[in-house]
Parts: sequence; structure tokens; C-alpha cells
Amino acid sequence: MIYVTVSYTCHYQPLCQVTHKCGQQVKDPVCLKSSTKHPFRLSLSVCQRDLTPCRFLGNRTQAVMQRALIGRSALLAQQAAVLDAPLFSRNAPVLQRLDRSMSSVTVPPPACLLRPLEAPLRYLFGPGPSNVPPRVLAAGGRPIIGHLHPEMYGIMNDIKKGIQYAFQTENKMTISMSGSGHAAMECAVFNAVEPGESVLVAVNGIWGERVAEIAERMGANVHKMVKAPGGYFTNKEIEQAVEKHKPVLFFLTHGESSAGLCHPMDGIGDICRKHNCLFLVDTVASLGAAPIYMDKQSKTPDNFPVLLLYTNLCEVFSVSCCFPGIDILYTGSQKALNAPPGTAPISFNERACQKMFNRKTKPVSYLFDMTHLSNYWGCDGKPARAYHHTGPVSGFFALRESLAILAETGLEESWRKHKEVSGYLQRGLEDLGLKLFIPERVSITSPQINDFIEKKIEIQGQANCKYCASRDFHIAGFETSLRNHHCYP
Amino acid sequence: MIYVTVSYTCHYQPLCQVTHKCGQQVKDPVCLKSSTKHPFRLSLSVCQRDLTPCRFLGNRTQAVMQRALIGRSALLAQQAAVLDAPLFSRNAPVLQRLDRSMSSVTVPPPACLLRPLEAPLRYLFGPGPSNVPPRVLAAGGRPIIGHLHPEMYGIMNDIKKGIQYAFQTENKMTISMSGSGHAAMECAVFNAVEPGESVLVAVNGIWGERVAEIAERMGANVHKMVKAPGGYFTNKEIEQAVEKHKPVLFFLTHGESSAGLCHPMDGIGDICRKHNCLFLVDTVASLGAAPIYMDKQSKTPDNFPVLLLYTNLCEVFSVSCCFPGIDILYTGSQKALNAPPGTAPISFNERACQKMFNRKTKPVSYLFDMTHLSNYWGCDGKPARAYHHTGPVSGFFALRESLAILAETGLEESWRKHKEVSGYLQRGLEDLGLKLFIPERVSITSPQINDFIEKKIEIQGQANCKYCASRDFHIAGFETSLRNHHCYP
Repeated sequence: MIYVTVSYTCHYQPLCQVTHKCGQQVKDPVCLKSSTKHPFRLSLSVCQRDLTPCRFLGNRTQAVMQRALIGRSALLAQQAAVLDAPLFSRNAPVLQRLDRSMSSVTVPPPACLLRPLEAPLRYLFGPGPSNVPPRVLAAGGRPIIGHLHPEMYGIMNDIKKGIQYAFQTENKMTISMSGSGHAAMECAVFNAVEPGESVLVAVNGIWGERVAEIAERMGANVHKMVKAPGGYFTNKEIEQAVEKHKPVLFFLTHGESSAGLCHPMDGIGDICRKHNCLFLVDTVASLGAAPIYMDKQSKTPDNFPVLLLYTNLCEVFSVSCCFPGIDILYTGSQKALNAPPGTAPISFNERACQKMFNRKTKPVSYLFDMTHLSNYWGCDGKPARAYHHTGPVSGFFALRESLAILAETGLEESWRKHKEVSGYLQRGLEDLGLKLFIPERVSITSPQINDFIEKKIEIQGQANCKYCASRDFHIAGFETSLRNHHCYP
Repeated sequence: MIYVTVSYTCHYQPLCQVTHKCGQQVKDPVCLKSSTKHPFRLSLSVCQRDLTPCRFLGNRTQAVMQRALIGRSALLAQQAAVLDAPLFSRNAPVLQRLDRSMSSVTVPPPACLLRPLEAPLRYLFGPGPSNVPPRVLAAGGRPIIGHLHPEMYGIMNDIKKGIQYAFQTENKMTISMSGSGHAAMECAVFNAVEPGESVLVAVNGIWGERVAEIAERMGANVHKMVKAPGGYFTNKEIEQAVEKHKPVLFFLTHGESSAGLCHPMDGIGDICRKHNCLFLVDTVASLGAAPIYMDKQSKTPDNFPVLLLYTNLCEVFSVSCCFPGIDILYTGSQKALNAPPGTAPISFNERACQKMFNRKTKPVSYLFDMTHLSNYWGCDGKPARAYHHTGPVSGFFALRESLAILAETGLEESWRKHKEVSGYLQRGLEDLGLKLFIPERVSITSPQINDFIEKKIEIQGQANCKYCASRDFHIAGFETSLRNHHCYP
């Protein structure tokens, strides 16, 4: 039995207080019966679990009681977490019927929202999102401030510095998008290209296809270089295509997660410079796990085979050395940076700024217009930052914290750690007798999906996948024959 | 004095462990001196505050020590919050110089990120973001799951139900954007309109201007009905303009926060239906604070003057009754819903779906294409949800919790609460002798900005505003003479 104590406090008649216990017949108190609709307050205490509702005879008491009960019960249930759901759910239908009979709204409050939020604790070994460290979660759960408060500008400045470090760039035009990697992808294409201009896209997996579609939609003249998923493009092939199509932008994916390939970048920046073309690189799946130096052309110290820490077994790839000179680079927060999804670092160098700030037409999206975004992020040298959109304050808190961890750890240590962990995984796959998806040894470690399924390897996890034959794991690959099977791209 | 215990554990020589205390001269241990670059681990404990670094004579020890010190100190400082910053910051420059001398990266880790995140606790009375209740913050700070996990689909389904309740609609095509209200704004225009089609926009403040610009950028034929900020449009004026321009879409702002007006909606849906035009409404600043019934044409019980709870003193408006029949409605999470910014509920009715799913051209944005988004949100009736983009998992947790609070509280109680609080504010403004920006008494309570500044009213808060003459408050208005002054729109 629950003892429900209902106590009204009327603003105009302070002494009008009524207390009831469950099982009693509860009438409207005097102050509520009057025709004046002055405000009142109600407090409610719930002591035990087995709720036997009072008979609420007064109309206003009914309405107030059910609202308070719903609110209080759901709050208690939330506080006591998942175990304590029965308390409320047993009584919800009754209370909701009460509500509907009283209310002027036609769509009732949904019962599902009166149960507490349930999200299981789970190891995330797919290509992203990855598990978020408690420090980053705590930062994202802090009380928010205004998106245009001076302290927020300070935090955004910190984020800029952190991205410059992660990208190894000194570009002033470095910001985070208020969205996922796709927002950065559209931002890059929308700003760097005008309708009718030629764009060259290297397609060897899903991401090239997406960029090609984005560029086509905004009216660009798109040329694709197509290889099977996981295929490499030689610098000669790239130069021939650039010479032929004279693009203003060439797109290549660094970490092509859909096939398990990390594409070498050496010399491609030079080709683009030579032919007056911007070099756009997607590093969503690889930043922080594999070396990339946005500004630098020099070679990394040694051949650097790296498997991504967060990688799923079907999404395994190693990384050879990268020596890019990249004009536009973007990534996502939810991969090796270990922040929640919803923010996406992006950087433009001087060449890219020259192109995008000397357009004849406005970019097709106001939200992704770098003229406004650069001002919002204090990159345009103007003293005042104007309102453009409301940035995801909590997301920026979390992104700052994840970049702080990267700054504390150090990029090289982060690469080393990913290499070590992925080496361990690689050996484990070999021990299981699995073959890799892409045949060359140095840069490929994705196991072939059919092998994997045939062997029905038991791995602790969770699956909802028709290919898996068990509920033990997910498959995240994009291999051609499984093109429509991408739980975790 | 801090006692630093450095302990190496070498993978290949397990007995190679070295422990040092601060003040000692620390050389590289034997295993690190060898030329092989095998992995090693290091643990470090810091006992007191006054750090006197050891002299690190070994190169690898130096590098490892500084990384560990940075990591550990920043972590401690973060845990101990703002008060404990001095520990690390005193030693950061030294440590960073050490780092740079060792590293192959050219851009060093930024010093600003080695300080803990600082975000003040602040009352947010502006038009948004508003303060986020601890329950919602806690939900947003929970460990994340995959964006395509079955549990995530459950949470997204809950969100859909919650939005249907908040909007008072039964539309199946109800989702949340992975972005702010601007993302919803662009999504609505991009999907409902094709290039060359006619769009009519009611401009009486900033939001109409934005929608007009968005529609112009994507190639629509835009017609504006312009009034001074805060001006009303009569139904006669609207019908004349619709007859003249034959638009496929008519846009009107419900809560025009830039001027302080809540526009009546009665009968406008009928006009749009009659002329085969979609009715798009922005309710970012008013949803949850003022009545709106997306599906219903009936009049609310009584004239319902409401001031927004989260309203800034320059952003005060009250709301008369609203009786819309709206085809596309969107809002933001960070206003009266009290969630962090970064998600934006949007709903399309059957008429809107008919139009947007029978286009000749694809929407200009892949990210905002409702064909994909409706599948991602399980609104298209297809059994499988395919990957489209990575939704903001933490943001959806928080949004679900804020919608749960609304469901528990009840819409009418939420409206009542906002009315009560805003009435209190209104009386306070009158007591201060302030005039309201828009002269009619029923629907306007924004104080005139000049009055406000002249009187230099002292209000507890924070300001960075040239108009304010003190650091006591912010100004968030968009009144014409202050068009370039919008800290908080």
C-alpha cells in the first residue's frame, strides 16, 4: 500500500491545506471548488510500492493528482533506474485514462515516455561510435551555458587549437561542424564548389559514392574514378584523371571504413597543386588512429601499420605511411576521438579559403555557409561574432574534453596505442584461420565475410544480423555482395 | 612536494621495473636504453601538490614522464574541478618544451587543452538555450550505445511519440533532426520545395528573413510579405498574397523571438488548403510554452496569454490563442523543452508527404533528404532501417528525457506554468515603469530597449553588451535599430 499525502497550498487562501491518504475518498478542497482559477501548488509523497489509488471525486483534484503521480512516479523510477519500473507502469493506464477525460489535448502523453530511459552498457568495437571515456561523458553532462557566452567562445577556441593539433595544421580556418561527419562532408563540397564546376571523386567504397551524390545534387559536374571496394588509386591514375577532367576539387577517403582500406596519400597533394585543384580528404574513420599531417609533405619515420582500436572484426584495416598536403580535411567526433557523435572537426587551408571566399554564387546551404561559420568560430578576424545558429553546447563540451585527452596522450602515443591493440587483434584473427578481405598483406587486415560466417566464430557481443546466424556479433562491412547489409558503417 | 613514483613494465623483460621519487635524477631504465622499440607501460602516482620535477636524464623517460604527468595532472585537476588548476598549469610550459624536443609532430599539443574545462553555472533567462534540468543532463551524460542498435531504435521511437504529443499530431512522419532548429528549417524547405517553385514568406523578424534566404539559395522563386519586426499579418493579407503568388509553401513564425511576437494562426491553415499550398510554421521559441495543435482546427478554451518562462527581459512576449492546421511544424530542443541544443523535432503531415515524396528532383542536401531520414527513423513502413548518418546519440538521450518530463508534467500544465511565471515577470516590468516594444496590450510585453537602457535597471546576471552600460544583463532583441546587436536570438 502506498500512502499518498496530497497537500494543496493556495496562493490566496494560505490556510487552505488538505491532506489525504490512499484509500480515502478525496474531494476537491474548498479553494479549488471556487469559480476563480487562481494558482495553487500541490505536493505529493509516495511511501510504498503497492499503489491503491484514492477515489478522486473532485475534478480538479483528479487532474492534479494524476499529473503529480505520473511526474513523481516516473522521477522515482528514473532515479532508481531500470529495476524499479513496475511501480509506475502498473498504474499508468489508469492514470492516463484519467488524464484524457480531463484534458483539452487530443493526443495523450505517450506511455513509453513514462518509463525510464534504458540504454545498456555495451562495448562498442564497431567502426563508430566508440565507447566514450567517463571524463568525456561527464563533460558532456555538465550544466550548459549560452552558445554566445564569452566562456563558450573560450571553449570553442580551445577546440580549434585541439583540432589544429589533431590535424597537424596551422590553418586559421579550423572549426567544428554542429553535426556528424556528413555535415562536414556537405560543408566542404557546398563551399568549395559552385554549380557547373568539375569535381573528381575517387570511389572505392561508400564514402566516395556519397560525396559524388552530394556534389551532383548541388549541381556540380561530377566525374568518378571507380574501383572495387578496397581498391587503390595510383598517383598516375589520379594525375591522368585530373588532367582529363580539370576538376576544382578532388576527393579521396583516407580511412575507407566500408572496405577496410587506408589509402596512401603521398604525392597526391602535389598533383592537385600542380593542376590548380583542391584536395579534399575524409579522415572520419582514421583520425587519431593513423598518422595524418594536413600541412606537411614529409614522410613519417617508418612504415606505420595501424589497425583502428575501435574497429569491428569485419572492419579491420591497417594503415601504411601517409604524407599528404591536404587543402580540406574533416573528421567525426565519434570514432578514434572517442566523443559522442554530433560534432565534426573540419579545416580549410589558405588555397581552399581563396576559392571558397571568392565565389560568384552563395553556397546552397545557409547553415553550412563558411562565411557565417567562420565568423561564429572567430576565424574571420572580425572583432564580433554574430549569431548564426545555436551550436550543440554539450557536444562542444564533450569534444573539447576528448581533444584534451588527445593532447595529454600525445598524437604519437595515440597512434602507437592503436597500432599495438590492432596488432593483437590481427594476430587473433590469424589464429582463428581467417583470411583478410583485401589480399595485400601490409595494408589490409579485414577478414573475409564468408569465411567469418562459415566458421561461426563465437565472439562475445550482440547481433541483429541475418548473416551472423547467432546473436554474438554485428557485421559492419560494405563488401559488394553485402552492399545492403550495413548495420555499422 | 609531490612524490612521483614511476614504474616501467616492459613487455619483453617483465622484471625490468624502476621506481623513482621526485628530486632524484631519473635515467632511462635498461629496457628503454636498448635499440629495440618494444612496447612498455608506465604508471605514475602523484601524492601532493607542490610539484618539484625530477631531473629526467634519459630521453625516453623524459618523453614518457611528461606525457604521463600531463595526463595525470589534467585528470586530477579535472576531477577536482576548477579550484585545483595551479597544480598542472605551473609546470605545463616546461613539460611542453620537453615534448616538442622529442616529437615528430610539428604542431604541439595546445596548452589551453591541458587546463580543465571551465563552464560557469549560470541562470539562462534568454530565449535559449535555457537551463537544462539535472535529469536531462544525466541522461545526456550516460554511456552511449550504437546509433543503429535496436535499443537506440526504441529510444528514437519514444522520441517520435513524445514529439507527436508535444506537437499534438498523429503524423507518422515525425522525427528529430540531428542538428539545431536551422537544420529543421533547411530540411523543411529543401524537401517541400523544388527549384523554380514559388514560395511565400511572412517576414516580420529574423526567422522569415532566414527562410527566405534558404529558399532563394536552393533556387525557389521567393516572395516576401514584409512587416516591421513584430508586425501581424491579417488573414486577408495572407490570402491575397497566396492568391497572387500561388506558392507551394507559405512560411510563418509562431514565436517570433526576434521581435517578441507570437503570431495568431487561426484560419491560415484553411487558406493554405484552399489554395493547395503547404503551411510551414516555426515554433522553435514557443513550443511547450504556448498552445499549438498541429492537427486541430478548434479554438483553445480561452484567450491564453502566455509569456515564455525562459524569456529574457528584452524578449518577452505573450501568446494569444492559436488554432492552426499546420502541414510542416518544427521546433528546437533548447528552448521551452529544456534540453541541450543539437536536436530539432519536425513533423510532416500527409499533404506534405504527398508533395515531398513526389518530387521531380532530389533535395539539394543528402543529409536533410527526408527519403533517407524517414527510413532512419522508421517512418516509411519498411522493415529495415539503413545507415544514413550517425545521429547524436547523447543528444537523443537528452531529448527523450526532456520529452518525458513534458509527458509527465502534461502540456496544459506546462503552458499554465509558463503563463504564471511570465505573468509575474510582466507585473515586475510594469512596476519598473517599462513600456512594451509592441504597443497592443494583449499580445505584447517586450519592453522597449531604449527605455530599458536609459533606466539602467540593475538585474543580476552577466553582460557583454555595448548597449547595457553595465555587466548586469544581456540584450537579446532584434529590434530594427539594434539589428546588428543580437547576442541571444
